[in-house]
Amino acid sequence: MTQAPQSVGLVTAQCAVFDAPFQLQGGAVLPGFQLMYETYGQMNAERSNAILICHALSGNHHVAGRYTAEDKYPGWWDSMVGPGKPIDTNRFFVVGLNNLGGCHGSTGPASLNPATGKPWGSAFPVVVVNDWVQSQALLADRLGIDKWAAVIGGSLGGMQALRWTVTFPQRVRHCLTIASAPKLTAQNIAFNDVARTAILADPDFHGGDYYDKGVVPRRGLKLARMLGHITYLSDEGMGGKFGRQLKAEGGYQFSYETEFEIESYLRYQGDRFADVFDANTYLLMTKALDYFDPARHFGGSLPKALEATPAKFLVVSFTTDWRFSPERSRETVKALLDAKKSVSYAEIESVHGHDAFLMTDEPYMQLMHAYLNRVAEEVGV
Amino acid sequence: MTQAPQSVGLVTAQCAVFDAPFQLQGGAVLPGFQLMYETYGQMNAERSNAILICHALSGNHHVAGRYTAEDKYPGWWDSMVGPGKPIDTNRFFVVGLNNLGGCHGSTGPASLNPATGKPWGSAFPVVVVNDWVQSQALLADRLGIDKWAAVIGGSLGGMQALRWTVTFPQRVRHCLTIASAPKLTAQNIAFNDVARTAILADPDFHGGDYYDKGVVPRRGLKLARMLGHITYLSDEGMGGKFGRQLKAEGGYQFSYETEFEIESYLRYQGDRFADVFDANTYLLMTKALDYFDPARHFGGSLPKALEATPAKFLVVSFTTDWRFSPERSRETVKALLDAKKSVSYAEIESVHGHDAFLMTDEPYMQLMHAYLNRVAEEVGV
Repeated sequence: MTQAPQSVGLVTAQCAVFDAPFQLQGGAVLPGFQLMYETYGQMNAERSNAILICHALSGNHHVAGRYTAEDKYPGWWDSMVGPGKPIDTNRFFVVGLNNLGGCHGSTGPASLNPATGKPWGSAFPVVVVNDWVQSQALLADRLGIDKWAAVIGGSLGGMQALRWTVTFPQRVRHCLTIASAPKLTAQNIAFNDVARTAILADPDFHGGDYYDKGVVPRRGLKLARMLGHITYLSDEGMGGKFGRQLKAEGGYQFSYETEFEIESYLRYQGDRFADVFDANTYLLMTKALDYFDPARHFGGSLPKALEATPAKFLVVSFTTDWRFSPERSRETVKALLDAKKSVSYAEIESVHGHDAFLMTDEPYMQLMHAYLNRVAEEVGV
Repeated sequence: MTQAPQSVGLVTAQCAVFDAPFQLQGGAVLPGFQLMYETYGQMNAERSNAILICHALSGNHHVAGRYTAEDKYPGWWDSMVGPGKPIDTNRFFVVGLNNLGGCHGSTGPASLNPATGKPWGSAFPVVVVNDWVQSQALLADRLGIDKWAAVIGGSLGGMQALRWTVTFPQRVRHCLTIASAPKLTAQNIAFNDVARTAILADPDFHGGDYYDKGVVPRRGLKLARMLGHITYLSDEGMGGKFGRQLKAEGGYQFSYETEFEIESYLRYQGDRFADVFDANTYLLMTKALDYFDPARHFGGSLPKALEATPAKFLVVSFTTDWRFSPERSRETVKALLDAKKSVSYAEIESVHGHDAFLMTDEPYMQLMHAYLNRVAEEVGV
């Protein structure tokens, strides 16, 4: 264990095609679909060492490594996944995928609708967290994985991890739900609704059917991302990083141009996101967040929803996360305790707000390392 | 004091015209301007009982009473101002005005620019809090008020009240700054910038010169208001009022239409606001908020900025206000104590978030009543 953690190196994305019609919870049936995914590490002979990584709102299947040596950035959770890293690819077989409805190669609103030969656009059905879990289970079947050593996710990804234990109680050994919540509050929904309204109101949105119009609703998507970004950072963290610093010297400009550093940063983030992300997928992801409420079909009781699973749980929250505050994680913990489950809970001191789940605060990394070490020992790798 | 508090009854707005050129802090000079204002109660012979009410982002001069008996709503602070109310018009002469740059009759971006005969639009200069204070002082001169018994405001209004004691240290007996802050944080500025970006990006904005185009940037303004509204309410308050309630019975709709009660409420608020408010004024108000930083010209020292005034202070914050949290009010209090000023501070328990300054939580109303009673006794009314 003295070797420095390394990267998984060069990776290749794969595509799993599912031809059978796929029933969604909202009533629609997809005539088959495909999922982009990546794997890192080796499956052991007992097929007991597989870990599923579920992504959040803007994530995808590219979790770790690089596609080419020249890639500027590695996968989105390269800090967590790799040889010697907390999710150790020397021990685990790790699977990352792009969720159904995504915009990184998995079937989504920008994909061709076989019935029309044109992009789905507005005709692509609303997808919920449980639909993702069902589709992920098909991928698990395809890969020959009966039971995950762990299902792990932050934010919306943590919701998928939690939902796995409800839908497939026997197929998860450990559930790690990080910076997440058992359901959204009115304020959470409100933020999502402003983001959606920004996209829906963009004249370039064309009711969702913009793909053949030569435009994309980038103004709306940019606004959605700027707003989202504020809620991912903490007041404290933003203050430390940007404060009231001005972009240029010489004092106030007395104009409505970008002037404070924080404005410049936010608009840049918004623009960059609008360059690479699909607005319809953004709508779909926020709606999946709003709808998530696993207790709903169990008379509103989360303990009842979680009753059937023998899985063990790690719940992690971050002190300055106000999007999904520690209080929300404690709701999950309470439900798990009420359901008499084995649960560990950590509230990590961090200035990084909701984004902390993607960061490398030492206590967080140590916790993940220690917990996953236990998981590895349990499954004998 | 056993008589029930009453309304000030029917009121009439007045207009004060100032013909002299008016130098703004940003460098521009306005060729005169007008301010809409209202007064309630009677000035006493000593002219010592005048109170100035400064409004927040979307407020105006119509503080109390109704214009006609049929008016559905009274002025925006009718709960606070009236006979027997905390700001008691049986004792005080109360002045409310619409700030320079406003859209309720005072000179602003929608007013005619005498140089062109057309609306100012994008040519209307950026105005800062100190410009408002300067213009309010001209109004005070016009009304024969040398020294205010109190200058009172919530949020952006509280910034004006504070700035009065810096710019005109001898003209304020009491400063009441409620749910306010000595300057914005990066997060505050970030929210304002998303609001501005929404307006600036609206195709109907036309660079601010939309008045003769037969359109207004209502999509942008609606978004700005929806976002603002979230930050005025507390997570807790929103949860209590709306929770995850759906608009219609029958469960999820699996569409992107308005579905949760909170969405319906927010969009309605946004639409209503876009009907009555001017987008250029919204830009101007948010920029005044961003720029406010009275310590700036005193080497960054707020105590130094406040040094000169003999005024006494009441600082009020609300427990669930996260737009301008109690912590921000305590910064003001600390600066006042460091400057050896007389300051009272109250942190009021409320579920109403930032909006609490407009609400009638009993401890808040009692505090205001008691404090202003003391002010009244001090000035002999």
